[in-house]
Amino acid sequence: MKQLTEDILKFRDVRGWGNNHDARNLAISVSLEASELLEHFQWRSAEEAIAKDKEGIVDEAADVFIYLLQLSHVLGIDLEEAARQKMLKNAQKYPAPLNT
Amino acid sequence: MKQLTEDILKFRDVRGWGNNHDARNLAISVSLEASELLEHFQWRSAEEAIAKDKEGIVDEAADVFIYLLQLSHVLGIDLEEAARQKMLKNAQKYPAPLNT
Amino acid sequence: MKQLTEDILKFRDVRGWGNNHDARNLAISVSLEASELLEHFQWRSAEEAIAKDKEGIVDEAADVFIYLLQLSHVLGIDLEEAARQKMLKNAQKYPAPLNT
Amino acid sequence: MKQLTEDILKFRDVRGWGNNHDARNLAISVSLEASELLEHFQWRSAEEAIAKDKEGIVDEAADVFIYLLQLSHVLGIDLEEAARQKMLKNAQKYPAPLNT
Repeated sequence: MKQLTEDILKFRDVRGWGNNHDARNLAISVSLEASELLEHFQWRSAEEAIAKDKEGIVDEAADVFIYLLQLSHVLGIDLEEAARQKMLKNAQKYPAPLNT
Repeated sequence: MKQLTEDILKFRDVRGWGNNHDARNLAISVSLEASELLEHFQWRSAEEAIAKDKEGIVDEAADVFIYLLQLSHVLGIDLEEAARQKMLKNAQKYPAPLNT
Repeated sequence: MKQLTEDILKFRDVRGWGNNHDARNLAISVSLEASELLEHFQWRSAEEAIAKDKEGIVDEAADVFIYLLQLSHVLGIDLEEAARQKMLKNAQKYPAPLNT
Repeated sequence: MKQLTEDILKFRDVRGWGNNHDARNLAISVSLEASELLEHFQWRSAEEAIAKDKEGIVDEAADVFIYLLQLSHVLGIDLEEAARQKMLKNAQKYPAPLNT
């Protein structure tokens, strides 16, 4: 993920796009891309949406991830490590049932 | 990321939560978590939001990622590879300026 | 607003679109249209966005309202009355400062 | 709707909240409230969500409407008239089938 993040940052810097990429604007973009992802499922079941345009769905999921990596860079965090820490919190909040 | 995805799937299966985790419901959850991320920046600048609750912001970014990994699993794709492919498409769509 | 709601319902029924317009699908559409509204402001200030495409912004705000009226119809509520009731709740939750 | 809008504006002005209510911040809030509305339907069917908390759903729909009215005020438009104009555009874009 580190190499991917560097490629994303280089891509945008070469095009002079990074000026107003603060955490607020990146959070807006994460939310907008997540909606474009959801739009594939508007008035459609999961199966119908995937049959109609799986490549489009994958591209939008990728866009959410790309903005999430830029946000992580701005916040100075490792997204994968943050997810691991969040899973530990979730495990405390929702303990596993016994005998599993 | 493979290990993280497996941990996430195991976490939810142990709790019996995976029944209706199809791509549509996961896309809804990605969008909802992205909004909870953005909510930290409602009526606040990036600086103010980070100063007020950086841990909360990081946790919400992690939640978006966690649902994105579940969606990727359901779609049978590698999210990091999808992002790399999307960057290649972006590079064709928005060519780099010369002399850079 | 009653006449407008009836026009919207007739518009969709004539086209055979109303079949899966339950509250969940309408809430998804409200959210998607709200994101299309916000998209006008991606990487732009309020002034820049309005100067660039005010008509587009107004159209998206109208789309959010149109789905909101359909949702209100499905829920069997009067949206304007619901907003008035919500304002009363807000007034209790956030009392006005004295001497105003 | 005019009286309702005036009440909303007075409510926020009395509390000194209107300072940064420009169109961009209001569009963010419309989107966030639309997600809180959708959140009622996360992992639930329409019926389940309404049975569980209809009042909460109505309150969130009202919140979307309240921010939409503030946005309309900032844009200097009549939301109901905008919706009527949008329906006319929709009728041209999607003509009604014959014999209806």
